[in-house]
Amino acid sequence: MRELTLEDLDDMVLGATLLGTGGGGDPYIARLMVRQAMEDFGPVTIVEPGELDPDGLVLTVAVIGAPTVIVEKVPAGTEFTGCVQALASYLGKQPVALMPIEVGGMNTLIPLAVAAEMGLPVIDADSMRRAFPQIEMCVFTLAGISASPMSVADEKGNRVVFEATTNQVAERLARASVMQLGMANGISCYSMSAGDIGRYAIQGSMSYCIELGRRLAAVQRGELNAFEDFLDFADARLYFSGKIIDLDRRTTGGFARGTVVLEALGDPNRTMRVEIQNELLIAFEDGRAVITTPDLICFLDYENAQPITTETLAYGQRVNVIGLPCAPEWHQPGMLDIVGPRAFGYDVDYVPMEVNAR
Amino acid sequence: MRELTLEDLDDMVLGATLLGTGGGGDPYIARLMVRQAMEDFGPVTIVEPGELDPDGLVLTVAVIGAPTVIVEKVPAGTEFTGCVQALASYLGKQPVALMPIEVGGMNTLIPLAVAAEMGLPVIDADSMRRAFPQIEMCVFTLAGISASPMSVADEKGNRVVFEATTNQVAERLARASVMQLGMANGISCYSMSAGDIGRYAIQGSMSYCIELGRRLAAVQRGELNAFEDFLDFADARLYFSGKIIDLDRRTTGGFARGTVVLEALGDPNRTMRVEIQNELLIAFEDGRAVITTPDLICFLDYENAQPITTETLAYGQRVNVIGLPCAPEWHQPGMLDIVGPRAFGYDVDYVPMEVNAR
Repeated sequence: MRELTLEDLDDMVLGATLLGTGGGGDPYIARLMVRQAMEDFGPVTIVEPGELDPDGLVLTVAVIGAPTVIVEKVPAGTEFTGCVQALASYLGKQPVALMPIEVGGMNTLIPLAVAAEMGLPVIDADSMRRAFPQIEMCVFTLAGISASPMSVADEKGNRVVFEATTNQVAERLARASVMQLGMANGISCYSMSAGDIGRYAIQGSMSYCIELGRRLAAVQRGELNAFEDFLDFADARLYFSGKIIDLDRRTTGGFARGTVVLEALGDPNRTMRVEIQNELLIAFEDGRAVITTPDLICFLDYENAQPITTETLAYGQRVNVIGLPCAPEWHQPGMLDIVGPRAFGYDVDYVPMEVNAR
Repeated sequence: MRELTLEDLDDMVLGATLLGTGGGGDPYIARLMVRQAMEDFGPVTIVEPGELDPDGLVLTVAVIGAPTVIVEKVPAGTEFTGCVQALASYLGKQPVALMPIEVGGMNTLIPLAVAAEMGLPVIDADSMRRAFPQIEMCVFTLAGISASPMSVADEKGNRVVFEATTNQVAERLARASVMQLGMANGISCYSMSAGDIGRYAIQGSMSYCIELGRRLAAVQRGELNAFEDFLDFADARLYFSGKIIDLDRRTTGGFARGTVVLEALGDPNRTMRVEIQNELLIAFEDGRAVITTPDLICFLDYENAQPITTETLAYGQRVNVIGLPCAPEWHQPGMLDIVGPRAFGYDVDYVPMEVNAR
């Protein structure tokens, strides 16, 4: 059990931006919400699942919608308390803790703001430890855990509760409601016991995110050996340093899709191409896939080591491309079916990061 | 209290086709469901609201979706019991009776099949006494009664419960879920007490539908004075006898829209134009609106007096155009805002049927 400090929060924002792998929504907006909630309602406590009653109910809470709308429409807050209350009421049981569904992007922070307001702790776990664009793309789906019952709420008081037969149908139903409710709503799903969180979730995601952000902050301050320390901590590797020479982005089927091409700094013969669907999904070096989903592709500004989101990519930008292995909990049967390259429509095999290890 | 006979059922099917005003789905499919349910589970009882405990819960049940799909995809039945059970479970209370939301088209009959299976009576009332394409287009909306909580279910076990702040949002949310669940689902909404049904519903709709069908059947058998008796019973009037000389139908925005033009039999200088949005909505005679929603426009085959649905309209068809005044319960403040010509986008004033009365 630890109380989240303002320093933790800043590190978490940086770590969450990195784990957003170019997407996941802007954590800075969520940071404002958390700061405000901590001022209004007091500090937030981060707990391990083992510190809770194993039968206690845990609910996730997140923002769902179109990234472009989420960035423009500052959350009211009531959409998040609303979806948690709707699901708790449907289940006839109050939660003992909240949990992020994804640690990566702004959904890392949303549960903190809601938890402060509801006087609940947040569990140091999640189901992705990166950003993914759909709610069924999580380790809970691999464990056969249902996203349902699930709730969606807006800031006006509209609430929907779903019982879907598969997590894929749950995703489609939630998305259809969100399209009717302003494209930026609260969602609560994957309700489960604290005991099951201990068994099936990715453990320590919040701490990992804070630690990752803390080390990246040291890189940004230019501390000695900070970059090596950062890579070591995440088992990560610098794959490419290059300049953006081509950039194609389009919004189709509710996704921000695109392709970015980099030319190596000092070597115009080496290129890297990265495919985007909200997040950075596959990196090809000279035509060969080198980093593939669910492993993480992160762009850091070459000068100041700031993570770059897909919306702010620009021609001529100089970036370091970092590959981070996904959380080990991902490596179980079925992973590639839901988050591998082919799950996103790419005819590319998954390339385990060990192959490229230093 | 009366037990529904097979003769009642046949008359009801004919009446429901007429009250569908060209739309409302095919009652013959629903008739098969009712026959089967009566064979499997026993007869169905029609009751007045006053015969029930005034505090007893009443739920509506209906099919919702695209008419073109509803006609093709024969209902499984579990989508209807599923949505009723989902809503009852959400409310934490079991219903004492079911009710049709619309008496007109196949939704007149769906509650009978579900009631037989669930061992419940059906209330002799509804909220439209004709077909309308959207769930907020009913007298309950005029009375300020919420469609929510509301449930949608499919035959696979997917269920959604909605709490919408307005009946318009409820309609949009339900429609969005239906688009994800196969376009032909069960819906239960406007849950209320038997006492409130007595106060706010259109009373005697089922009996009216049976009686109307019985009289139309007599017309079809060519009985003496049957047509005059039919018109008298419904306060209806024959507006036009003509031949279809132009027909334009298209499916846009989820509606079957279209225009049909008739030339008077024996007088090529007189024409009638009828505008369609699933149902027949406005009839113009020589450019002047003569029958307008919510009053009913019904096409009867000129030879055999069979009601003609918009899907079966054909060039050269000879039809009698009948106008029926809507249920008197419709005439209250707000009617035109939700079901008048302008609610459907026509820049036309409502023409009360009294103006044209014999």
